Amino acid sequence: MNSAKLIEGLQYKANKLRIHSIRSTTKAGSGHPTSCLSAADIVSALFFHTMRYDPQTPSNPNNDRFVLSKGHTAPLLYAAYAEAGAIPIAKLDTLREIDSELEGHPTPRFEWTEVATGSLGQGLSIGVGMALNGKYLDKLDYRVYVLMGDGESAEGSVWEAAALAAHYNLDNLVGIVDVNGLGQSQHTMYAFDIESYRKRFETFGWHATGIDGHNMSDILAALDEAKSTADKPTMIVARTLKGKGISFIENKDGWHGKPLPEDDVEAALKELYIPDSDYDFDIESPPKHEVKIKNDSLSQIAPPNYQIGEEVATRNGFGTGLAKLGEVNPLVVSLDGDTKNSTYAQDFMKAHPDRYFECFIAEQNMVGAAVGLSSRGKIPFVSGFAVFLTRAFDHIRMSAISAANIKYVGSHCGISIGQDGPSQMGLEDLAMMRAIPNSVVVYPSDAVSVEKLVEQVANYKGIAYIRTSRPKTPVLYPNNEEFKIGGCKVLRSSDKDQITVVSAGVTVHEALTAYEMLKKEGIHIRIIDAYSVKPIDEETLKKSASQTNNTIICVEDHYYDGGLGDAVLNAMAKHRVLVHKMAVKDVPRSGKPEELMELYGISSGCIVKQVKELTIT
Amino acid sequence: MNSAKLIEGLQYKANKLRIHSIRSTTKAGSGHPTSCLSAADIVSALFFHTMRYDPQTPSNPNNDRFVLSKGHTAPLLYAAYAEAGAIPIAKLDTLREIDSELEGHPTPRFEWTEVATGSLGQGLSIGVGMALNGKYLDKLDYRVYVLMGDGESAEGSVWEAAALAAHYNLDNLVGIVDVNGLGQSQHTMYAFDIESYRKRFETFGWHATGIDGHNMSDILAALDEAKSTADKPTMIVARTLKGKGISFIENKDGWHGKPLPEDDVEAALKELYIPDSDYDFDIESPPKHEVKIKNDSLSQIAPPNYQIGEEVATRNGFGTGLAKLGEVNPLVVSLDGDTKNSTYAQDFMKAHPDRYFECFIAEQNMVGAAVGLSSRGKIPFVSGFAVFLTRAFDHIRMSAISAANIKYVGSHCGISIGQDGPSQMGLEDLAMMRAIPNSVVVYPSDAVSVEKLVEQVANYKGIAYIRTSRPKTPVLYPNNEEFKIGGCKVLRSSDKDQITVVSAGVTVHEALTAYEMLKKEGIHIRIIDAYSVKPIDEETLKKSASQTNNTIICVEDHYYDGGLGDAVLNAMAKHRVLVHKMAVKDVPRSGKPEELMELYGISSGCIVKQVKELTIT
Repeated sequence: MNSAKLIEGLQYKANKLRIHSIRSTTKAGSGHPTSCLSAADIVSALFFHTMRYDPQTPSNPNNDRFVLSKGHTAPLLYAAYAEAGAIPIAKLDTLREIDSELEGHPTPRFEWTEVATGSLGQGLSIGVGMALNGKYLDKLDYRVYVLMGDGESAEGSVWEAAALAAHYNLDNLVGIVDVNGLGQSQHTMYAFDIESYRKRFETFGWHATGIDGHNMSDILAALDEAKSTADKPTMIVARTLKGKGISFIENKDGWHGKPLPEDDVEAALKELYIPDSDYDFDIESPPKHEVKIKNDSLSQIAPPNYQIGEEVATRNGFGTGLAKLGEVNPLVVSLDGDTKNSTYAQDFMKAHPDRYFECFIAEQNMVGAAVGLSSRGKIPFVSGFAVFLTRAFDHIRMSAISAANIKYVGSHCGISIGQDGPSQMGLEDLAMMRAIPNSVVVYPSDAVSVEKLVEQVANYKGIAYIRTSRPKTPVLYPNNEEFKIGGCKVLRSSDKDQITVVSAGVTVHEALTAYEMLKKEGIHIRIIDAYSVKPIDEETLKKSASQTNNTIICVEDHYYDGGLGDAVLNAMAKHRVLVHKMAVKDVPRSGKPEELMELYGISSGCIVKQVKELTIT
Repeated sequence: MNSAKLIEGLQYKANKLRIHSIRSTTKAGSGHPTSCLSAADIVSALFFHTMRYDPQTPSNPNNDRFVLSKGHTAPLLYAAYAEAGAIPIAKLDTLREIDSELEGHPTPRFEWTEVATGSLGQGLSIGVGMALNGKYLDKLDYRVYVLMGDGESAEGSVWEAAALAAHYNLDNLVGIVDVNGLGQSQHTMYAFDIESYRKRFETFGWHATGIDGHNMSDILAALDEAKSTADKPTMIVARTLKGKGISFIENKDGWHGKPLPEDDVEAALKELYIPDSDYDFDIESPPKHEVKIKNDSLSQIAPPNYQIGEEVATRNGFGTGLAKLGEVNPLVVSLDGDTKNSTYAQDFMKAHPDRYFECFIAEQNMVGAAVGLSSRGKIPFVSGFAVFLTRAFDHIRMSAISAANIKYVGSHCGISIGQDGPSQMGLEDLAMMRAIPNSVVVYPSDAVSVEKLVEQVANYKGIAYIRTSRPKTPVLYPNNEEFKIGGCKVLRSSDKDQITVVSAGVTVHEALTAYEMLKKEGIHIRIIDAYSVKPIDEETLKKSASQTNNTIICVEDHYYDGGLGDAVLNAMAKHRVLVHKMAVKDVPRSGKPEELMELYGISSGCIVKQVKELTIT
């Protein structure tokens, strides 16, 4: 039983958070104060009673984690950390200013924010990743709290996360839905029907309870109940009022994302009853646990072991390489969505079952969980068909804003998969991954290079993408060949070369065949394997172009816009080089890989034809 | 009560479908026969008893619709239409061949397939769109049947669709989950726990029933029950066996996506007991209803009505234009995900409430529903924050494979939104939409051009994207100015121009300011508003570059890769023109729009600096 004094103290804190939220948003001239007010009591309970964390040491691995899925209530988050002594109260006045880390929606620029939020419906997935790490990897007893809005529960990714959290018995995960009934433009689908939310989470395998989100005793009781619930995650569905505590905005539509006018602030603050309270909060700090898993291994990854000319698909090389990487780097984990026998993530799973997480057919949650794992220092490799990673583009985008350290791996790229048809062909994945700022994008053409590049991207801190292919291709490189991010390989070169052909993945092999065909006719071309699409090796391309009539042909198994060809165009933009792109221009169809390469203009025969057209003129 | 003879006849048909599925996949050398076998009884019941459709006239608007969400069972679909007399049985032998419309996963190349499937978890959303059309727009009494797999129900978009279908009381929608318990790489999350599926759909507001998916009486009874269920959609959860009917593959793991070896086919077919049956199926054809809504309007859309220099955000211009378009084109419908007061889709909603569908915060389902509406002849405008359309990239990609006629509208693009921060800034939307083959991408800079372009994209058959901005910008064009897809506007031009500056949206206004600043210093530049990003006006750009030292500066409010700059690079690739891109290179932050434009290098001041650097050298 919690004392009346505690209750009163927490109510007092809650109204302080409300006051800060109103003041800071009015000062900023924008923001979402009414959404802060509905959640203030819940946040007060979490930050000043339930959560165990050290406000002075956000990096303490044993801190309870808090994920603000309803990121637009950032002012409430900052207010809570200010009241907890993490930052000066005065700092709240810098909300949304260009030189302040207190951004409109939380980003890791604010040290206490471990993950960026603001795209709704992603927080629960991130919480799943943090909870998986605590329960199964670091084996720390921190708990994970995710504060969600009611509107965002319409996002499917919430239900993907709900299913997986129950599947993995994440009893260290607690979700709280702040049901204030009002969305941005109208009432939510269910308004105040708490039971409709509660029952859904219950049928998804959660311990779910409905409460009055402004009743501090109810809130504390529900949070205590969650702590004592074993084997199941807990969802607390809290009925609240948007704008709670201020008569002229409380539960009023049309106030979403609007700060109070300055003239109304004082009247508003008057309404926020603050009882005298000398309650002395002592936030419980966790012991300074060490992270259990460290990467202190000095051993080297085992080298590739192939014969030149051996036929191996790059997706197989990826699986082999990832399993080997797992031997030397205990931080590496693998997630896949029921495609592990196609992407060959199963090789890692078999070698390191404790570090593989099956995410089933739910790519958004898989990426969100990876963000949570990354925030706890792991290096997640997230694999799937390249085409199905597009399902999670918003989550991938947000993972970059979270400054996450995730390696995405897309298999079955391009028309070279053949008969399964266009729905299964990854043809926009390079465009998607290149758009991410500071991303690394590699597209290996053989088993040796993919193994080497798995290690390279693992050592790169940030978002990286490995594109793998379905068909078997001959090994081109010796096992001791080195591949670096930003590099490329000149495979054929002579002083008689008339054109440079830039290729990657399967088209490297088409280009090599074209080379032989043209050589017979006395036409010499330079062949480059541009395995590093981003960053691309501008220097080598420039040098090669200058030696081949400033003319480049770029051939790729990707749609025309956004792929390797555009990477080459950007590298040559200031060098007056002619670039001829060969890529897939229409929605393709089913057929044999070689038939499709021919039909869509990226086969060896098409390269020969293009080279001749350019050399004749 | 259905006669024993009917039951026997349908079982007979089911096994015929099984036989066709096995034969065609073995002949093709790839495909998913075991997934076909689990669903054969359900499909037999639908195609030869329950569904009302005309096999000879797939275009009949009153046909019951069938969506094969588990698209990998395409051979079963083709077999059903063959047995129904729509195509010759012999045609099934062409499965997956390059010149056959019987593709590995269904596409509209096969006339009876209205929408492409194969990316799992999208079919129910498409069904929602078809059902919305039947119940609320065309007011036809066709029913919509969606066949799903169990594995795909892990996809969040299924639950987005489930929620919206119940919200709109779609009692003309029936889903069937084929629970064969086996995914691609292992058991599904719930194996044969039928009740876990049934209860979830029930809590999402559906009439949900669990049956034995191989018991024909049960199947027919459940389908009859669905017909007599009012105000609610029905979900039939059917327990089945993968590979049903053939001992050596039935319910065996490791058989996903594998055809039977030729040597095993005869043994397999022997096991498929086919009772003699002379049952004469007469598939009930619907009356040849006319579509209720036709676009026979000849009236012209009302012209824009602005003053030059008037400050209007392009998102407002979009809302105004869409509402006007709705007056003259009854096929236009609007979908938005609780952002209608930001995108200004609310202007259409207020003018045409019967043609607006609120989709709440669930972008994937919103796009899927639009595909369903498009398949029924409507022209959906799907609006949201540009950044949240990335949530539905996989669905947008599939909408192109479905040859859908959808107009996507993304508001709040770029850093010019200001304080809300990076999670809300659409900075990869151009890369995403340009990657779609044959897409049209427009990015207007003022209210007149956006209104005109709303009409233009509506008249373009296919995928189009309109990018709108949050801040107010001055009207640049007279109300009678014409804008065509593939065009651009030269806003400033003289024979003294030293450089061409290509811009779009907010950067047009930055460029015009830079023009004035430079003019004072005697430096003349050409200013182009490239409102049509795809296709881009190559001729005008080429001509302009040739008159300005073959030098172009391209400035845009988008990430560096995949946007307007790359469109310009592609247009200039063969013309030896120097292209200098100015775009956002890092994850941005919160701040005032003008501060951010300066900080990330796309302001008028930055343009002036870049021009000077290039003109001095």
